[in-house]
Amino acid sequence: MADTMKCAVLHGVGDVRIEERPVPVPGSGEVLIKIMRVGVCGSDVHYFTHGRIGDFVITDPLVLGHECAGMIQATGPDTGRFQPGDRVAVEPGSTCRTCFYCKSGSYNLCGDVAFMGTPPVDGAFCEYVVWPEDFVFALPDAMTFEDGAMMEPLVCGLWAVHRGGVKTGDCVAVFGSGPIGLLALQAAKVAGAATLIAVDIDEFRLDFARKIGATHTVNDRDGNALEQVLEISRQVRPDFPECVGVDVAFETAGAIPTTRNTLAATRRGGVAVLVGLPPEPMVELDIVEAASKEIDIRGMFRYANRYPTGIALTLEGRVDVRSLVTHRFPLDAVRDALEFADTNKASSMKVMVEVG
Amino acid sequence: MADTMKCAVLHGVGDVRIEERPVPVPGSGEVLIKIMRVGVCGSDVHYFTHGRIGDFVITDPLVLGHECAGMIQATGPDTGRFQPGDRVAVEPGSTCRTCFYCKSGSYNLCGDVAFMGTPPVDGAFCEYVVWPEDFVFALPDAMTFEDGAMMEPLVCGLWAVHRGGVKTGDCVAVFGSGPIGLLALQAAKVAGAATLIAVDIDEFRLDFARKIGATHTVNDRDGNALEQVLEISRQVRPDFPECVGVDVAFETAGAIPTTRNTLAATRRGGVAVLVGLPPEPMVELDIVEAASKEIDIRGMFRYANRYPTGIALTLEGRVDVRSLVTHRFPLDAVRDALEFADTNKASSMKVMVEVG
Amino acid sequence: MADTMKCAVLHGVGDVRIEERPVPVPGSGEVLIKIMRVGVCGSDVHYFTHGRIGDFVITDPLVLGHECAGMIQATGPDTGRFQPGDRVAVEPGSTCRTCFYCKSGSYNLCGDVAFMGTPPVDGAFCEYVVWPEDFVFALPDAMTFEDGAMMEPLVCGLWAVHRGGVKTGDCVAVFGSGPIGLLALQAAKVAGAATLIAVDIDEFRLDFARKIGATHTVNDRDGNALEQVLEISRQVRPDFPECVGVDVAFETAGAIPTTRNTLAATRRGGVAVLVGLPPEPMVELDIVEAASKEIDIRGMFRYANRYPTGIALTLEGRVDVRSLVTHRFPLDAVRDALEFADTNKASSMKVMVEVG
Amino acid sequence: MADTMKCAVLHGVGDVRIEERPVPVPGSGEVLIKIMRVGVCGSDVHYFTHGRIGDFVITDPLVLGHECAGMIQATGPDTGRFQPGDRVAVEPGSTCRTCFYCKSGSYNLCGDVAFMGTPPVDGAFCEYVVWPEDFVFALPDAMTFEDGAMMEPLVCGLWAVHRGGVKTGDCVAVFGSGPIGLLALQAAKVAGAATLIAVDIDEFRLDFARKIGATHTVNDRDGNALEQVLEISRQVRPDFPECVGVDVAFETAGAIPTTRNTLAATRRGGVAVLVGLPPEPMVELDIVEAASKEIDIRGMFRYANRYPTGIALTLEGRVDVRSLVTHRFPLDAVRDALEFADTNKASSMKVMVEVG
Repeated sequence: MADTMKCAVLHGVGDVRIEERPVPVPGSGEVLIKIMRVGVCGSDVHYFTHGRIGDFVITDPLVLGHECAGMIQATGPDTGRFQPGDRVAVEPGSTCRTCFYCKSGSYNLCGDVAFMGTPPVDGAFCEYVVWPEDFVFALPDAMTFEDGAMMEPLVCGLWAVHRGGVKTGDCVAVFGSGPIGLLALQAAKVAGAATLIAVDIDEFRLDFARKIGATHTVNDRDGNALEQVLEISRQVRPDFPECVGVDVAFETAGAIPTTRNTLAATRRGGVAVLVGLPPEPMVELDIVEAASKEIDIRGMFRYANRYPTGIALTLEGRVDVRSLVTHRFPLDAVRDALEFADTNKASSMKVMVEVG
Repeated sequence: MADTMKCAVLHGVGDVRIEERPVPVPGSGEVLIKIMRVGVCGSDVHYFTHGRIGDFVITDPLVLGHECAGMIQATGPDTGRFQPGDRVAVEPGSTCRTCFYCKSGSYNLCGDVAFMGTPPVDGAFCEYVVWPEDFVFALPDAMTFEDGAMMEPLVCGLWAVHRGGVKTGDCVAVFGSGPIGLLALQAAKVAGAATLIAVDIDEFRLDFARKIGATHTVNDRDGNALEQVLEISRQVRPDFPECVGVDVAFETAGAIPTTRNTLAATRRGGVAVLVGLPPEPMVELDIVEAASKEIDIRGMFRYANRYPTGIALTLEGRVDVRSLVTHRFPLDAVRDALEFADTNKASSMKVMVEVG
Repeated sequence: MADTMKCAVLHGVGDVRIEERPVPVPGSGEVLIKIMRVGVCGSDVHYFTHGRIGDFVITDPLVLGHECAGMIQATGPDTGRFQPGDRVAVEPGSTCRTCFYCKSGSYNLCGDVAFMGTPPVDGAFCEYVVWPEDFVFALPDAMTFEDGAMMEPLVCGLWAVHRGGVKTGDCVAVFGSGPIGLLALQAAKVAGAATLIAVDIDEFRLDFARKIGATHTVNDRDGNALEQVLEISRQVRPDFPECVGVDVAFETAGAIPTTRNTLAATRRGGVAVLVGLPPEPMVELDIVEAASKEIDIRGMFRYANRYPTGIALTLEGRVDVRSLVTHRFPLDAVRDALEFADTNKASSMKVMVEVG
Repeated sequence: MADTMKCAVLHGVGDVRIEERPVPVPGSGEVLIKIMRVGVCGSDVHYFTHGRIGDFVITDPLVLGHECAGMIQATGPDTGRFQPGDRVAVEPGSTCRTCFYCKSGSYNLCGDVAFMGTPPVDGAFCEYVVWPEDFVFALPDAMTFEDGAMMEPLVCGLWAVHRGGVKTGDCVAVFGSGPIGLLALQAAKVAGAATLIAVDIDEFRLDFARKIGATHTVNDRDGNALEQVLEISRQVRPDFPECVGVDVAFETAGAIPTTRNTLAATRRGGVAVLVGLPPEPMVELDIVEAASKEIDIRGMFRYANRYPTGIALTLEGRVDVRSLVTHRFPLDAVRDALEFADTNKASSMKVMVEVG
């Protein structure tokens, strides 16, 4: 094993350079992971094209990438869960373990999180990463490294469904059929939803939705998705005509019209989950109608305690993460991968970087 | 007992007339209640001053009033819970008992509700009302009819706190210190909140808040209520400086700035309950920040299964409904009562109509 | 349509007679249902062989049978959900709709329930039944009457899983692989359980378990089921060796050793659901260990609000109720059906009576 | 500050010796606490009188005591929450922070806990203790060290009520009125219970119960506590005669008859919490009746995330921990304190050791 490693470093908007950096050394409780696969996330693309996401601004060179899997290369002191050679998926946010949020099981809300590929923490578009072993999870033999890298978007979907409180038999609608939308849809199916309505304006994406389990797809090209969703909800609940709208609606498109549709599509007493976020912070919403329907509007921020779940469900064939990967690039071509993901949204789903 | 009774009938904006109507006859499962006390609600005042609330328009003469208590006068067939002379509080919404919502315990969302004083259902500003006995509750000897009439706004407060999921030890803020705000505050205290922050711009109301249990009051005259609430939240949680904002925030003022403050005052992972509703349906909100904090924004619509709770808490002295009643009018003066409540918001809290 | 109908009437232990009775007339809110299929439940068999179940004693002739589906024949006054000819599944317990339990969504605990085939309420082993329409549910075209009759045991399974609080990714064990055990297993799968361990001493039943989705089967012939279940729980949670035992365990065999195993197989902080009931009321349990593990031991009594869920899941192919039906008898042979079910437990699963 | 400190060391049954030991040095993340007050717990007494509790056997000399408060004397590296001189309450169980249970907010179930005064971890009957700062909590000026030491039994009560899911308006019964029973009762009151029934056979203890908020006390001298509790539950719920028994029942006496009463006193659909544990592991229970009532039987093991809550409630005067302290002994007399607590159960409540 060499002392240095290749890294894809973002220096500014559109400026990714392959550089050599020293291989890091695992400290107490940490392991050194040889990175094998890293998925390209929308947030990676956003940093690449804008140099920032909200208050997170790239001022110093940064390694992006956080949807990763690899192999244990070495273990630091005070570790014990892994041996060199173990195949693993890596949860990319490491938290303080001692604050109010960490102690109470909501570590995703920890203020001291170090999250890969978010300034100033380097990510996984490189050959090696050091990470605390309690945020590293064994990958079963039957799962590929690519599957492992897909655990990150999958657990986003699982968390969305956890937030939504999806129950057995529910009727749900997912607005937006990108990777997160499709994984939320699958997570909703796993959680027992009987009716799964996927909404998008792109047939390429709705095809994926049909393939991974949507019972209904709605193309919003003509802007009448809301009416279609309400009509489906009526059809699937013939015994309760008074119950119009879905039990749980998910917004994953990050747009204002879909945010409004998400609230409007939710039945009285239902739940609307905001997974995507509109580009502008201030959004005009029909909050009076939403409140009068006594719905819950629930935000989400990352996830907590879902990696083992994601791995177990993938292992048992309960979700299909593999077919979402449409394009692959080598580590040297991270720049191309980011650019491709940015400019081919209508013909790609998940872009994967093959490192090892 | 006479065959006719006096009713205060709203014929149009500002037009309340005292009329004689036949005393109604209880049908199967119903009881005839001699009305004793009826509180004036903000919604009564709104119908009186505007002739409508949203889609509910007064087209035909209507008896207002729904916060009522009285005495059983007679019982219809297929009843058994009460005897003539029993003192009772009346839950003013009667539901279908067979729909999805009624069957699953959320009867407040029933689409077939008959709600007193909401078109086209006559209310309780009259001498007698017929009502299904399963929405009528025994008033203990130690409680007055006025206490009984106060159960309706109290259960609104209890429902708000139920929706907010207030837990033992919580830090809560209530924006708005009108009757509902003060009762939500008391309900939050009963549910175990340790820190109770009342916010208003009116010292008359904040005095009430202090009297009924607020641990902190914040006067928003200078528009800095948010900063004050956040600062209090920091002080009461010295061990968790990373946890800024309240666990649960309630909006009871029905205004846009307080709605925004309610979201902004809620800590990461907390809950914001919208009890009041802004006058305009479309409200511009910082939904991105709210969602990123992973908070729940929860609406509410009336209440379900809370009358026995309200009665038990009042009986045990755990809440103080009585001191909220500041003014009283006889049935003949319902018009004056409504006008007074409309024009004396800064110097009155709950206006009560004494019928029997 | 004739004025009389054929009924299979239980007159005493082992004494079932086919008799003619008047076709009942639907009252207010009721519909007349032409019965098509009725499953034989263990409770039917127990009444047939013992003349009683606990405090419920058959003193007068009784029609058994409560797992039923049929066709609307006529509708009474004040109905509106159905037309003659509609195909329906029937929820066999009709409740008061006005008590504490009914109002709060737990109508299964209503003290005034009329439950088919439980003294003194006649059941469905007959040609026609009158029932309140709010306990009758539309059967989609794609579902057979037999599917409809199977909704009753299915919703028992759904309720067990609801009580168990099964979550996405859970590891569950079901002790006992009779019809209820297998349906609880399927319901747990639908609710997202990733690991599904079926336990029985009978390979005939374990074969069914494998077919309907068990990921592991454990034969308790040698009395070491507990050790096997614990070992499987360790294997499926490689990242958490400290977490031994299943998240949720179900007892469906109604025996003391399986009840003890159910508690012992539950991990710290997990849930044990008692679906079956041991024959003796007083059971010696290691309650100290259970309490120290901080587990929940949850009983269950029938179900509430699960018919639409069961129908939706069956329609979407998410559960397989059909393959559990192993034997069929005509109405005239109800006696044979009951006797067969009693004496062929090792080679039959669900016995169905074909009425229409 | 000296290099050595006084410790009260248990060498065997009844054998407590005052010894000098080196003052410990705080490591990374740890603080050195000068102990001021330590309460005597039933478990301390049990180790003193039996030399063991279940599988925990005292083989080497051990310092008992875990209900403690003190003052920060020094801070180790990587700390930051406290300054020397800060007054603190100490949570006596320190956990691994990285296992399944710690990550998900149930750190009380962590298998790697170090719990003060439980073999082989020394406790707080000594002058100084080193402890991780994230299990140490600031004591407000208005609270005494004795109050601080009482936080431990208080949070046991809070956890019991958390486990019981006590809701606003509930009717609860607490079997056993020792310190834990009384604190569970207060915690239930704080959580909103309207009816609080304390059961014991000792009037000394029932006097305390009345003083700290019981609405009803039941003396079980004649063995008819169950009937009395059921009768009270009927009286307080006049509108729901079908609902007999309490919403939540707590067993805190650790005896078989009270365990049975706890289950029998719980209404259909209610919750029974086992706080105390019978001396024998195997207990004969009417599990069939309990399961048929669909009740939850919930165990508990210590507590998690409750110290800030306990401190906030005490500060606001919502609970009264102070009046439970009936006797005080100096550190030199720990042996006497343990013996006194053992032999004066009928005339003492909480015995406190004054160290600093």
